[in-house]
Amino acid sequence: MEKKELLYEGKAKKVFTTDDPGLLIVSYKDDATAFDGMKKGTIVGKGAINNRMTNHIFKLLEEKGVPTHLVEELNDRETVVKKVQILPLEVIIRNYSAGSFAKKMGMDEGIKLSRPTLEFSYKNDDLHDPFINSYYALALNLATQEEIDTVTRYAFIVNDVMREYFSTLGIELIDFKIEFGRLGDGTVILADEVSPDTCRLWDKETHEKLDKDRFRRDLGNVEDAYNEVFRRLGIQ
Amino acid sequence: MEKKELLYEGKAKKVFTTDDPGLLIVSYKDDATAFDGMKKGTIVGKGAINNRMTNHIFKLLEEKGVPTHLVEELNDRETVVKKVQILPLEVIIRNYSAGSFAKKMGMDEGIKLSRPTLEFSYKNDDLHDPFINSYYALALNLATQEEIDTVTRYAFIVNDVMREYFSTLGIELIDFKIEFGRLGDGTVILADEVSPDTCRLWDKETHEKLDKDRFRRDLGNVEDAYNEVFRRLGIQ
Repeated sequence: MEKKELLYEGKAKKVFTTDDPGLLIVSYKDDATAFDGMKKGTIVGKGAINNRMTNHIFKLLEEKGVPTHLVEELNDRETVVKKVQILPLEVIIRNYSAGSFAKKMGMDEGIKLSRPTLEFSYKNDDLHDPFINSYYALALNLATQEEIDTVTRYAFIVNDVMREYFSTLGIELIDFKIEFGRLGDGTVILADEVSPDTCRLWDKETHEKLDKDRFRRDLGNVEDAYNEVFRRLGIQ
Repeated sequence: MEKKELLYEGKAKKVFTTDDPGLLIVSYKDDATAFDGMKKGTIVGKGAINNRMTNHIFKLLEEKGVPTHLVEELNDRETVVKKVQILPLEVIIRNYSAGSFAKKMGMDEGIKLSRPTLEFSYKNDDLHDPFINSYYALALNLATQEEIDTVTRYAFIVNDVMREYFSTLGIELIDFKIEFGRLGDGTVILADEVSPDTCRLWDKETHEKLDKDRFRRDLGNVEDAYNEVFRRLGIQ
């Protein structure tokens, strides 16, 4: 399968059409952005790590009953995926306080929540992806109640599966963001990626950050952190 | 029944203990604040209007099955209420876009939503009452699932009752904020107030604002607006 036209270029990925109208090829970039695109940089090797890590975890999730857009890994950076219409909702699950949640709630980072939280952001660059809730999503016709119920159910399964899996690698899953898409027949499946760009991953013993916060906060050793997660996945 | 000690002084009300440990006296002030207390002023006559309007509407809500803290109106500004522990959640219902919602979602004000929205703010002055959701409330033990279900059910009844009632007065209920409290036995009841301080009320024909936005936004005729709502209530 070969790339045809560039359909879309995002902050971290390019998406190409293929000969099959139902399939696309995603190409992961090393580009990194943060703070609404205000901060830009490169994390050498990130594209390959995020591509291979996402596919590895999506396979695990498929086995656990979460359908994903994954079709076939083409090479280090490129993967064939099912074409979907992305739901305009970022779905965020948190197990520990961190980032915007910690700031908003006046908490230190790394405090275990008494149960995981789920939240929606409205995917809209102009509005800076505001935090909304399911009532907002329904009132603005961003998704149906059935879609909201489905992504909520899947998101908690994704959390259970990933939390347990990362734990075996000595990594605490602090929080993560996922995105879903609609197939032509309306079926909702997991799309986008799961990687150190979209998950907060802390070493269980040292609490060292092994994720994009190293880039966001200029903590140094950014590539080392991505490589360390990749090494622990054991898929080299 | 007489006021004993000042228990609490808020932005718009004072609360006093009484001889009965289960009852308090609320005294409504003319003081007005906005923008997290950054803007301060006086709306002459507001205390009496808000007191009498709240009691009038709380009676209506009691008839429709929503329990409230109202016991007895003592005089223009003072009312005996049941003592509750206020839930640290502001419950906001919106029928039309306005205020922070319109800004956040990039919409003009006054657009009818395809269905009403409900949202929670965490009542915390230091954190500026952040928008949260029910998962946050549960994870931080702000309320139980049962309490969240109860306040959600009551809030939509309050919306139905108030929207219909204000409509008969030629007023569109744009949005409103309510608060709930727990009685000693854990029963959840409606507390605080419903007034032009806590509801956005627009004249149905002219769309003139008849609420605290006149004060927030320096629109003038603030007292006139409060008096006009009070006049239409017909409880002088």
